[in-house]
Amino acid sequence: MSEFDLINQFFKTTIVKRNDVLLGIGDDCAILAPPANKTLAVSTDTLISGVHFPESTCAEDIGYKSLAVNLSDLAAMGAEPAWASLAISLPEANKSWLQGFMQGFNELAEKHNVSLIGGDTTQGPLSVTINITGFVDSNTALKRSNAKAGDAIFVTGNIGDAFIGLDTILNKSKSDQKPSGFFIDYCIKRLNRPQPRLKAGQLLTAFPVAAIDISDGLMADLNHICKASGVGAKLKIDKLPLSAELMHYYNKNPDWQRILSAGDDYELCFTCPENKLSEMKQLMRSHEIDITCIGEITASPGIKCFLNNEIQSFKLAGYNHF
Amino acid sequence: MSEFDLINQFFKTTIVKRNDVLLGIGDDCAILAPPANKTLAVSTDTLISGVHFPESTCAEDIGYKSLAVNLSDLAAMGAEPAWASLAISLPEANKSWLQGFMQGFNELAEKHNVSLIGGDTTQGPLSVTINITGFVDSNTALKRSNAKAGDAIFVTGNIGDAFIGLDTILNKSKSDQKPSGFFIDYCIKRLNRPQPRLKAGQLLTAFPVAAIDISDGLMADLNHICKASGVGAKLKIDKLPLSAELMHYYNKNPDWQRILSAGDDYELCFTCPENKLSEMKQLMRSHEIDITCIGEITASPGIKCFLNNEIQSFKLAGYNHF
Repeated sequence: MSEFDLINQFFKTTIVKRNDVLLGIGDDCAILAPPANKTLAVSTDTLISGVHFPESTCAEDIGYKSLAVNLSDLAAMGAEPAWASLAISLPEANKSWLQGFMQGFNELAEKHNVSLIGGDTTQGPLSVTINITGFVDSNTALKRSNAKAGDAIFVTGNIGDAFIGLDTILNKSKSDQKPSGFFIDYCIKRLNRPQPRLKAGQLLTAFPVAAIDISDGLMADLNHICKASGVGAKLKIDKLPLSAELMHYYNKNPDWQRILSAGDDYELCFTCPENKLSEMKQLMRSHEIDITCIGEITASPGIKCFLNNEIQSFKLAGYNHF
Repeated sequence: MSEFDLINQFFKTTIVKRNDVLLGIGDDCAILAPPANKTLAVSTDTLISGVHFPESTCAEDIGYKSLAVNLSDLAAMGAEPAWASLAISLPEANKSWLQGFMQGFNELAEKHNVSLIGGDTTQGPLSVTINITGFVDSNTALKRSNAKAGDAIFVTGNIGDAFIGLDTILNKSKSDQKPSGFFIDYCIKRLNRPQPRLKAGQLLTAFPVAAIDISDGLMADLNHICKASGVGAKLKIDKLPLSAELMHYYNKNPDWQRILSAGDDYELCFTCPENKLSEMKQLMRSHEIDITCIGEITASPGIKCFLNNEIQSFKLAGYNHF
């Protein structure tokens, strides 16, 4: 099977048709008509087998997650998704693998109205690079540099689940007594099928907030906001939103260091000025989006962690590729 | 050195500043302001070490070529380059390699006014994926489907040189008697430093032409035009534009099969209706762009090759990754 047959068979049949895609896959370039009154938000993320997902991950989950982590960057900007390019490197042209991959990809693309507009297929170790474009008003985009001293700090959903899923999969072969049960299934699903927080991000554009998606770990990602804004943060560890499944796994004794440095949850971390708190909370509630206040932005730099008002010495650690 | 230090040090210091980049590298997304009266041309190309360039290729040439092959896709559409995203996978965070890579990349980015607007750095086998965006008028973009029976077929520059460069490098270790001399240096430069034909492509938007860049080989790429347009082609092999260096290498006895199926030249192949020929040729001449007529589009499908008016049986072969 030639590269071109592959492309035609699997990638050309994009599920989502958009009127702003004037020419899709199959020429030297796609031709796209951007909206007149918006700017473009653009991001790129690469996922490498054995680095960004366990080698045992099934094709459907890889297809889903590759798009999800890119959509999560749009969410963190408050943008509305539009177009994706897919560069995929494969050890071999495996038909059922590609079918599975596109099934996972298309499931999420359809949900968020994303058109696949082009890409490249090459032979090599399994890796997926997606370039995603969304629309956003440049004045209301959720920049990391928007945080001010006194702002409250929030996260959406729960954190720490995905790491338990990853840890369980990676330690499978090392131990006979691998944890199992409903709570592990839940955590593995949180690892493989993260929900990009697009609606939350879009709603937040009504407020002067800073935002980031949690991909490297809460502390590392909050630190990016602090550095970009020239501020610090006070984190109330005991306020962190934890799932029942995570509490079950840790026997109600959470490993805070791990939870603070665990990536892959793809929840949003964002700030909000005090005079906008009640309006913002009400808007989130009306859309049934769970958010939790976990601390506040400080004028002095650095992140200080408190557990029941006592200062703690957690390491600022996140995932580091090198 | 952390991934973030790397990104800051090497990628954030983009050489080219554009007014339409409202927010560059360093947030979850870049924010870009597209022009009001144009559509976007978007393409993605991946280069993998040992597949798309020899493993011995130096960092400068990899940086240059990664951008060049993407710009070539914009050229084949007649688009004006604007923004690039860079996803790079590296075995290790090697500072001098990254400096070299960015030097080659920036050399070409500066020439064509391309801003680096984002990307992702990961650890893994060496591979580079660039997503490029340019501006084009959707009505005059050089689509592959524009060819009509009776149109003349042209190529820019010369073809077949890059393959000689590649073949020499790959066979270096196999033979003691490796070819050397000025003509080999020229062919290796043609392999590593292709000139994307942006000006030629932009000039061609004044005419109803079909175009493609020659990345997989003349016959394979012309065949893409033919398939997309529902036509065939008659190729006059003896008219192919060949460099003095290539003729020297082949001892004035060119290997036509190789020349027809050699990729990596990144010249443009395009069609032109008869009633526009003199106008088009004059425009190209006034910009000192060499073009050569190598055949004509036929109503009957398939590509037929003629050498001094005798039909030949060359294989339709191009580079196939699988």
